[in-house]
Amino acid sequence: MAEARYDVVGIGSAIVDILSRTDDDFIAAQGMSKGTMALITADQAKALYDKMGKSMEMSGGSAANTMAGIAALGGKPAFIGKVGADRIGEIFAHDIKVIGVYFHGGAARPTKLPSAMSLILVTPDAQRTMNTYLGACTELGPDDIDAQLIADSHVTYIEGYQWDTPRAKQAIRKACQAASKAKRKVALSLSDPFVVERHRGDLSLLIEDYVDLIFGNQDEVFRLFQVNSFEEAVTRLRQTNTLACMTRGAKGAVVIDGATTTEVPAAPIAKVVDTTGAGDLFAAGFLYGFTHGRDLAHCAKLGALAAAEIISHMGARPEADLRELMTKAGL
Amino acid sequence: MAEARYDVVGIGSAIVDILSRTDDDFIAAQGMSKGTMALITADQAKALYDKMGKSMEMSGGSAANTMAGIAALGGKPAFIGKVGADRIGEIFAHDIKVIGVYFHGGAARPTKLPSAMSLILVTPDAQRTMNTYLGACTELGPDDIDAQLIADSHVTYIEGYQWDTPRAKQAIRKACQAASKAKRKVALSLSDPFVVERHRGDLSLLIEDYVDLIFGNQDEVFRLFQVNSFEEAVTRLRQTNTLACMTRGAKGAVVIDGATTTEVPAAPIAKVVDTTGAGDLFAAGFLYGFTHGRDLAHCAKLGALAAAEIISHMGARPEADLRELMTKAGL
Repeated sequence: MAEARYDVVGIGSAIVDILSRTDDDFIAAQGMSKGTMALITADQAKALYDKMGKSMEMSGGSAANTMAGIAALGGKPAFIGKVGADRIGEIFAHDIKVIGVYFHGGAARPTKLPSAMSLILVTPDAQRTMNTYLGACTELGPDDIDAQLIADSHVTYIEGYQWDTPRAKQAIRKACQAASKAKRKVALSLSDPFVVERHRGDLSLLIEDYVDLIFGNQDEVFRLFQVNSFEEAVTRLRQTNTLACMTRGAKGAVVIDGATTTEVPAAPIAKVVDTTGAGDLFAAGFLYGFTHGRDLAHCAKLGALAAAEIISHMGARPEADLRELMTKAGL
Repeated sequence: MAEARYDVVGIGSAIVDILSRTDDDFIAAQGMSKGTMALITADQAKALYDKMGKSMEMSGGSAANTMAGIAALGGKPAFIGKVGADRIGEIFAHDIKVIGVYFHGGAARPTKLPSAMSLILVTPDAQRTMNTYLGACTELGPDDIDAQLIADSHVTYIEGYQWDTPRAKQAIRKACQAASKAKRKVALSLSDPFVVERHRGDLSLLIEDYVDLIFGNQDEVFRLFQVNSFEEAVTRLRQTNTLACMTRGAKGAVVIDGATTTEVPAAPIAKVVDTTGAGDLFAAGFLYGFTHGRDLAHCAKLGALAAAEIISHMGARPEADLRELMTKAGL
């Protein structure tokens, strides 16, 4: 097998986040389910935006955040996703390129719809509730998957959110087949509890057929297997014959690999400001370690480190120098 | 004279800021003049943006920042400015409305050009260097000035930056005449040392004909009068027969009103992060006090308080609750 040109190629929605602080009453009044992602139409986005307070805009997107994190750690990531021919798309493309991610897509493949945006409400408990207008992202299809890029990447990382876009299923199958043919790894992020509920069958089938690494938080794993205890979740993850990472918020994370189980605590931080991107950055740290030959405990510690940085400020892209933090932590 | 419906109406450029951290070498290599604002074309903006690191987008614009600050303090501001029919324009309009500023303009008056953006580079010393593509803002003209809105506002606040837009001069004259006719006050912000250099004659004439309040930092005042000592600057400001505020960074501010001079120190903060908006928020605090009948020392202290908040974080719109800070400070 040839040396991989890229550590990880992410396939995901190219989203710019519009972040705003709010209170629990607002979330309740809007009938939102706190801590989850809901899909909204352009009209709903407009109506919600009009009700939101002052905001800041920063690039986001789950897999894109993970690729940005890998780049910030010094790795070589690539990203496949769709943006519209507008300024929001330019902002997304700019931010992902300058951090050091090869962006496959963008202006070269024009879309009919405008770029995606996620209206993210951050409550005083630092929890984030997302309302996403997918726009151009829904146009992702098999033509956007460059089999050579997949073959050139050590790991192909797919966000579960993709199952909400109509033609992405075909695109993902194409990517998985290309990875399989090139003897590369496939990683899946479960993304969101409701995504798991909506697409349990498809996700389970993909795991059986192709997936080598699973990333998910405890709620997502519980819903995937329709279980409600930590022990059952671990058992079921073990039965998938994958390398599985289950994140547990302040309780840290657990890595299941065959018969072995590795637990790491959450990295300490002074104050949790905004949990947007916590799972994405855990995956970034873990995958950086994984593609650089580190052992599983080391990989998980890198995941915890990157997640801790991201929840210490607003937005889902690293602000601190992750490479420096990694060195300081002796990782 | 009727009770004013608005405390202050600002006339200025409707800009979304793209903020990015950089180092002094980058500023030098790009031939920029640190701490100032340069106008750039759409092509130059694209070229510079491609070289900039990861960024965050937040609403800005000098007079718009001042109006946002007045709203955050509990005042009643209005804003006149032009945005394009695009998402950047929507972001600007959203952010200024939700903070409580009446926005005169926006979608109702379509422009040919896209919305303005300012590429702002923040160096480790917290200084900001701005590169502004004015776009839709250059279309501001006399038709955008609602004489009734001016007559309904206690103070009409004009940013010096407006002299860089071709038809703004006529718009400003129209606004000043409307304010004068309604016996309202006119305030001028000198905005930027190079703006003063480019438009010294026009600014001096406006001061002579209409201006009641002047806001500027020491460098701007020095350049306006072509003097180079604090004492000369104070003397020349006194001769304008205006109420003049000269800000001096860490040295605080001085207010000149006829024969009296009032000095206030800078409000203490833990760490200066980004000076973008410091002058804008000083003006906000001062004008809030001024339009609420506070004495000059009180007004200047409010200015120092609002400026201190804005330089403690990235971006030129208040993050903390200014009203609460004001109460805590016993103002």
